[in-house]
Amino acid sequence: MSNKVFKKITVVGCSSESYEKAIEFGLSKAGESLRGLAWFEVKELRGGLASDGNIEWQASLEVAFKLD
Amino acid sequence: MSNKVFKKITVVGCSSESYEKAIEFGLSKAGESLRGLAWFEVKELRGGLASDGNIEWQASLEVAFKLD
Amino acid sequence: MSNKVFKKITVVGCSSESYEKAIEFGLSKAGESLRGLAWFEVKELRGGLASDGNIEWQASLEVAFKLD
Amino acid sequence: MSNKVFKKITVVGCSSESYEKAIEFGLSKAGESLRGLAWFEVKELRGGLASDGNIEWQASLEVAFKLD
Amino acid sequence: MSNKVFKKITVVGCSSESYEKAIEFGLSKAGESLRGLAWFEVKELRGGLASDGNIEWQASLEVAFKLD
Amino acid sequence: MSNKVFKKITVVGCSSESYEKAIEFGLSKAGESLRGLAWFEVKELRGGLASDGNIEWQASLEVAFKLD
Amino acid sequence: MSNKVFKKITVVGCSSESYEKAIEFGLSKAGESLRGLAWFEVKELRGGLASDGNIEWQASLEVAFKLD
Amino acid sequence: MSNKVFKKITVVGCSSESYEKAIEFGLSKAGESLRGLAWFEVKELRGGLASDGNIEWQASLEVAFKLD
Amino acid sequence: MSNKVFKKITVVGCSSESYEKAIEFGLSKAGESLRGLAWFEVKELRGGLASDGNIEWQASLEVAFKLD
Amino acid sequence: MSNKVFKKITVVGCSSESYEKAIEFGLSKAGESLRGLAWFEVKELRGGLASDGNIEWQASLEVAFKLD
Amino acid sequence: MSNKVFKKITVVGCSSESYEKAIEFGLSKAGESLRGLAWFEVKELRGGLASDGNIEWQASLEVAFKLD
Amino acid sequence: MSNKVFKKITVVGCSSESYEKAIEFGLSKAGESLRGLAWFEVKELRGGLASDGNIEWQASLEVAFKLD
Repeated sequence: MSNKVFKKITVVGCSSESYEKAIEFGLSKAGESLRGLAWFEVKELRGGLASDGNIEWQASLEVAFKLD
Repeated sequence: MSNKVFKKITVVGCSSESYEKAIEFGLSKAGESLRGLAWFEVKELRGGLASDGNIEWQASLEVAFKLD
Repeated sequence: MSNKVFKKITVVGCSSESYEKAIEFGLSKAGESLRGLAWFEVKELRGGLASDGNIEWQASLEVAFKLD
Repeated sequence: MSNKVFKKITVVGCSSESYEKAIEFGLSKAGESLRGLAWFEVKELRGGLASDGNIEWQASLEVAFKLD
Repeated sequence: MSNKVFKKITVVGCSSESYEKAIEFGLSKAGESLRGLAWFEVKELRGGLASDGNIEWQASLEVAFKLD
Repeated sequence: MSNKVFKKITVVGCSSESYEKAIEFGLSKAGESLRGLAWFEVKELRGGLASDGNIEWQASLEVAFKLD
Repeated sequence: MSNKVFKKITVVGCSSESYEKAIEFGLSKAGESLRGLAWFEVKELRGGLASDGNIEWQASLEVAFKLD
Repeated sequence: MSNKVFKKITVVGCSSESYEKAIEFGLSKAGESLRGLAWFEVKELRGGLASDGNIEWQASLEVAFKLD
Repeated sequence: MSNKVFKKITVVGCSSESYEKAIEFGLSKAGESLRGLAWFEVKELRGGLASDGNIEWQASLEVAFKLD
Repeated sequence: MSNKVFKKITVVGCSSESYEKAIEFGLSKAGESLRGLAWFEVKELRGGLASDGNIEWQASLEVAFKLD
Repeated sequence: MSNKVFKKITVVGCSSESYEKAIEFGLSKAGESLRGLAWFEVKELRGGLASDGNIEWQASLEVAFKLD
Repeated sequence: MSNKVFKKITVVGCSSESYEKAIEFGLSKAGESLRGLAWFEVKELRGGLASDGNIEWQASLEVAFKLD
């Protein structure tokens, strides 16, 4: 039946390339210890500026996974 | 004294009956691995629509429990 | 490179003195089981009123720590 | 003419049955001292967890009533 | 592939019974002219108070359906 | 010294002319029973549509007044 | 009975005079193709600045109308 | 049983010392005319700057008290 | 004159590549039935996780188009 | 091409007449030192109440202007 | 008359002592280059965690000052 | 010590390529007149639609830089 329960955790992924890469990295890290990742919601987009001018793209995500 | 600390986790409970049942199911699932559930806050109410027209009531909750 | 990932947890610290003390207590409790605390964000400030008129300062925090 | 003025008060109703019962109880309590209740807006849904596992459904409402 | 597009419309369903009934009525009305309803998000819960004290439960929903 | 306390109440003023008139009417009604009105904050602007097409401008305000 | 359903659409009305005129124009345009307009909610107030310094008042509205 | 109702009022406390003092002063003023204060929620933190450079700490609170 | 009116609709575009592709796909789908698309506002960024680990980028947009 | 950059500043305009006049005054003051004002967004509407009952309409605006 | 205009800037003050100290330091820094500081609004409270466990209290403020 | 102060300004960067390019362009423009850029926060993502169907990606950012 539809008595499912999901849990959401929050991760912040960082990448020097793009927000999509930051999210992918955050998801792959979350997936190392969790099974059943189902969806994610972007909560905040920020960035850091290194002294050499490079940008670190930072994406804060809520990641939902199904509880058995 | 009052130096208590609570932790909050986020769960999404689903039910084919009502939001209250969705919340109860989410709480009972959270209670399987956690002691000391104290209160919860409803963060979002959504729903899914199955192809037969049945509704899945989905409630996203922050559940607080006391840390020892 | 900058492929870092942080995880955020939410704690509610309580103190009979001030919001800063409530936050410090929440952080020190979180630090007992987590390494690499990096920053925190205050999400809500509330308080309880005991029958003797004393105030319990309650601060809800998202605490971020680096995943290895 | 349409120079009406309404006042809004905020109440939190609690029930052991459902959010609708919590709202009804909050409205009936507000109606004891106020005439002309016109509409209400749900501002927050929360809940308490008793030690026996029973849920207290808590609904925070803004209730509007017409000033004469 | 995953190049899907959904459209969301907003409806307000009303019922004299409960929020779930208000939502069901809003969805069934939306379903009369739309195919492919997929999910909904509750945006606001309000209510009207009739002079006889009866409550009209009002739920504002965003309903998403798939575009062909 | 600066140990002042203000109280805020919420009123909804309505006018067939403009939002400014709706606010003025709400404030003048609030001023009938309260002294020391100090400032107000507009929380919501809405409107009603009569069957003859006339608009009722509705402004929801928090009005602050000084407690003695 | 109270099993009513409303639909909301979003329009942005523009006027060189005032926000009230911008809203009126948006409502009258919406009323050309819709019957049963019931209420509206102001979602955003913005404005454009022409090179001659004239202001275009822009009001974003959700307009609700009753579904038969 | 749990059919409790609370009412919330909003006060703004001001102090030349700290936010905690501003809150305490607002609560003690609210407590002069109300019994059963139960909890409070901080809604806004602001401040005024006197011409001599002194800061007035201003905290806007929703204070909840139990209705008999 | 400046008596323009725009209408906004909400679409959710999905893509297996990036948020920009998801938005482009949503806009091109909206453009099939609408003329005069003028601007869009990103309301939410989410994503789905397929069982093979592929990400579906999902962007919720309000798209504004000019009414004649 | 479209590599434009705008800067936004925040001003609060005040008027004894209306919100539109408050906004116009804020914009004209901003225009004294800035060229290329392009659009504005209303962030908050408040008001002050003088002891003689006159209202000061206060509008907080983000004003965008193009950087060369 | 009341045709005043204020400008708001945003500063983030940091202190190793408390949020009040962080705000005071931000205001005193803003006051070095600006005259007529009138009020401030706290927008965000965060903190950094040094490796020695010391907390850096960080307060983000909008500071308003009067334009001549 | 940690008595640092940052100032935040708001810029809107535009690009015909992607949000990342829009942000980079906004940051590089801000960096022409400011030293010590430290981090940025994405506040809004929008876009313009040219008559040829090309998209202008628009990102509104708060950029923080350290005050000496």
